Amino acid sequence: MDFSGNHILSIDQFDRSDIEKLFSVADKLEPFASKEKITRVLEGAILGNMFFEPSTRTRISFGASFNLLGGNVREITEVGSSSLAKGESLADTAQVLSGYSDIIVLRHPENGSVQKFAEASRVPVINAGDGSNEHPSQALLDLYTIQKELSQNKKNLDNLRIALVGDLKYGRAVHSLCKILSKYSNVKMDLVSPEELQLPEDLLNQLTDARVSVNQTENLEEGISEVDIIYVTRVQEERFNNKEDANKYRGLLSLNQSIYTANCEPNTVIMHPLPRDSRSDANELDRDLYANPNLAIFRQADNGVVIRMAMFALVLGVEGKIEKTAKPVNWKVGLSS
Amino acid sequence: MDFSGNHILSIDQFDRSDIEKLFSVADKLEPFASKEKITRVLEGAILGNMFFEPSTRTRISFGASFNLLGGNVREITEVGSSSLAKGESLADTAQVLSGYSDIIVLRHPENGSVQKFAEASRVPVINAGDGSNEHPSQALLDLYTIQKELSQNKKNLDNLRIALVGDLKYGRAVHSLCKILSKYSNVKMDLVSPEELQLPEDLLNQLTDARVSVNQTENLEEGISEVDIIYVTRVQEERFNNKEDANKYRGLLSLNQSIYTANCEPNTVIMHPLPRDSRSDANELDRDLYANPNLAIFRQADNGVVIRMAMFALVLGVEGKIEKTAKPVNWKVGLSS
Amino acid sequence: MDFSGNHILSIDQFDRSDIEKLFSVADKLEPFASKEKITRVLEGAILGNMFFEPSTRTRISFGASFNLLGGNVREITEVGSSSLAKGESLADTAQVLSGYSDIIVLRHPENGSVQKFAEASRVPVINAGDGSNEHPSQALLDLYTIQKELSQNKKNLDNLRIALVGDLKYGRAVHSLCKILSKYSNVKMDLVSPEELQLPEDLLNQLTDARVSVNQTENLEEGISEVDIIYVTRVQEERFNNKEDANKYRGLLSLNQSIYTANCEPNTVIMHPLPRDSRSDANELDRDLYANPNLAIFRQADNGVVIRMAMFALVLGVEGKIEKTAKPVNWKVGLSS
Repeated sequence: MDFSGNHILSIDQFDRSDIEKLFSVADKLEPFASKEKITRVLEGAILGNMFFEPSTRTRISFGASFNLLGGNVREITEVGSSSLAKGESLADTAQVLSGYSDIIVLRHPENGSVQKFAEASRVPVINAGDGSNEHPSQALLDLYTIQKELSQNKKNLDNLRIALVGDLKYGRAVHSLCKILSKYSNVKMDLVSPEELQLPEDLLNQLTDARVSVNQTENLEEGISEVDIIYVTRVQEERFNNKEDANKYRGLLSLNQSIYTANCEPNTVIMHPLPRDSRSDANELDRDLYANPNLAIFRQADNGVVIRMAMFALVLGVEGKIEKTAKPVNWKVGLSS
Repeated sequence: MDFSGNHILSIDQFDRSDIEKLFSVADKLEPFASKEKITRVLEGAILGNMFFEPSTRTRISFGASFNLLGGNVREITEVGSSSLAKGESLADTAQVLSGYSDIIVLRHPENGSVQKFAEASRVPVINAGDGSNEHPSQALLDLYTIQKELSQNKKNLDNLRIALVGDLKYGRAVHSLCKILSKYSNVKMDLVSPEELQLPEDLLNQLTDARVSVNQTENLEEGISEVDIIYVTRVQEERFNNKEDANKYRGLLSLNQSIYTANCEPNTVIMHPLPRDSRSDANELDRDLYANPNLAIFRQADNGVVIRMAMFALVLGVEGKIEKTAKPVNWKVGLSS
Repeated sequence: MDFSGNHILSIDQFDRSDIEKLFSVADKLEPFASKEKITRVLEGAILGNMFFEPSTRTRISFGASFNLLGGNVREITEVGSSSLAKGESLADTAQVLSGYSDIIVLRHPENGSVQKFAEASRVPVINAGDGSNEHPSQALLDLYTIQKELSQNKKNLDNLRIALVGDLKYGRAVHSLCKILSKYSNVKMDLVSPEELQLPEDLLNQLTDARVSVNQTENLEEGISEVDIIYVTRVQEERFNNKEDANKYRGLLSLNQSIYTANCEPNTVIMHPLPRDSRSDANELDRDLYANPNLAIFRQADNGVVIRMAMFALVLGVEGKIEKTAKPVNWKVGLSS
């Protein structure tokens, strides 16, 4: 895959070598994200950060990533776009907005809408989520996190053992992660969910076709023993026809330190796409896990920044120019101890 | 007119030499808008992009234009401003906000409000639309588009033949365009609208006073033959007392390729201030016109960027410094083919 | 107090030497705020400007201040944050958002929330108002304004005579100002309010403990004679259980030029935290005061910019590097006369 000048719409565009290329650029961008140095390589470039559905953290993560490369950000956060309300087609919106930006990040509530938008756009488009369809940067940052966490324990993505826990029926992040993990060898997957919230049939078939070894269970303790990664998700209330149906499942699969200690291997890493539901009746990940060094959920969110920086750098073809433009940081970074 | 340090509130401020000056600066800014080079001439300057009424594309167009000159943008997109709700006068709001910006772009729902705001502001104010009153940047980008498109055919603004089609009663863009075209000689205008949506009487008188040759008709075919430009507008539903009244007129004046071929001269240019209504019952400009090279509607939107850049450059007095500050572009521009 | 790498959550953190340090940095930043020169000292830094409650002018003031130091701004203006709505804890929000920014400005409707957020944040947090609790930058800009205005008359903060006028019960700005003035010697304070809107008992005790000389009155003429500063506030309607209760007090304490002339010393300075209620039934400060050179309300708002710049500069430890990075301004500043 040639990233330069191309859209990123789906995780299906990526083969293993594309992923490796992206991750190696992300690695090089790490010192810029952690403010050891700065770059202005995208000085003069404009990101159109277009969110036709609210998603604060994804929006800020993309915007900050672009700023870290030196570019400016123009944003839409209006849910009901006035122009669409006046009968404008998505193609017209794309034509016009692509005249204001060098690259567009688009979040839209309708499945397939980002693809349609990209077809009319005159600049590259990155899909930041189109309905329940795709959200490639989330899958890529999850995979990047898994790889980084595993490498601490001298393991890698081949031979991965992972438990996916929670609402596997509606969780878009989980679906994309399944697709991307299918590209690796000898993956073993425990799918832990209530029966009604199991992974959709077609995805299950995709996994078995790709020779992923799958075990479905409703039992958390069983699912999380003998895995490298536990990936927990929230019940996607907003996708249920009525909230009471969702409430039946809240709190069924809560992980805390004592369950972890009793069932997990010592270095098992805990992930979550966030936001996690911390209300007492859900409590997906108990607060006593805060002290667990294997709780990787905030490292995972941080990785979103380098992954998105890498996507921008590759699509805009500047990945080779960043090091040359590096400058020192003027300010005190972080908190005084 | 001396642009430097002055407000731009109304199209009436501009005589022909002002327009020529603005357009010549816009021409010089073209390579910066199309990313052949970048400038940071407004590095350190802040635009207060204040939208007290939603208008996504106008807001993004002004913001992107300021970014392209190197400046930062602070924005208000709240429709019901909390301070105004607490009884603050527009003059106080202007005094305070002008302490945060070097220049202010203001959109406001009330006629005359931008003028009132400007009187109290300590920095230049550009009117981005005050109710049904004025929207000078729209009129200027329309005129710039007409001139550029005509120059391809070795024609110019004097001796222009133009058809204005659609809701001529409520369309603010059309009203401003009429005013500005009155400044040119030997203009011939076909006003094509349902009888109830004709151009207001006072504007009609202004045109005849300026010796514009006017022909009013309800017949699209008649109106669009023998013109250089067809300027189509949407029925301004939101200005009707009830939507059903508006619906009577939707779809009455739809242009498509076969009507165009049968009635227009070969190089007749099609314009629209956008958004255009593409719902099947309106279909102002049919999708089969996409293939027509004379469909200028997206070039017209693009021209908004250079015109707004030129307004900023002239009002902030940097139009002579841009070339000197030019730098190369680091990134790959546009899409891979 | 060591500013560098630390949160600014409460006015109680500041002793007199901290205030002097902040004000001396603010003085040095004045030429940058008034565009005699520019600095890019925070180039590459990102402010997370997080407003979980609307406050347009405070948000724009913080954002513009950061831009004036050369940094980028990412913003949240959504009142109902989607993540919080999905059951995310404030600590999780802090962990995630602090991965996207170098410093965070937080406004939140709940008392104590900013403190809680700061405990989990990995970057410094500045409190921009947490419910009725604290709003330190407002108190500091008020104090800075008092000092600057007094210095014109060869006076200083010790021996200050001030009248606080209006809703002293609910006005957060007034409460913080009382706290900060307690740090100075020989302060004389007239508290002018309807009996029901008097300063809360605990604050009154704090003032007398700090040997502030306090006089409570309902009579405006009496309160404003023999003072250096009149500080007027708006009735905080939104804090009353029902609006009609608030309406009883609107317009009771209106200052105009003839009351001023009849009762005040010649150089008495008029301040207001803004927005002021200019509706005819409130009219806290009459429009005939516009011509009074001692009306300092817009200078006060302007001072917010240098105070916030100074907060950023000190917390990020760049206050010593600003002068070295100074560059000339390219554009025409302000309006043509």
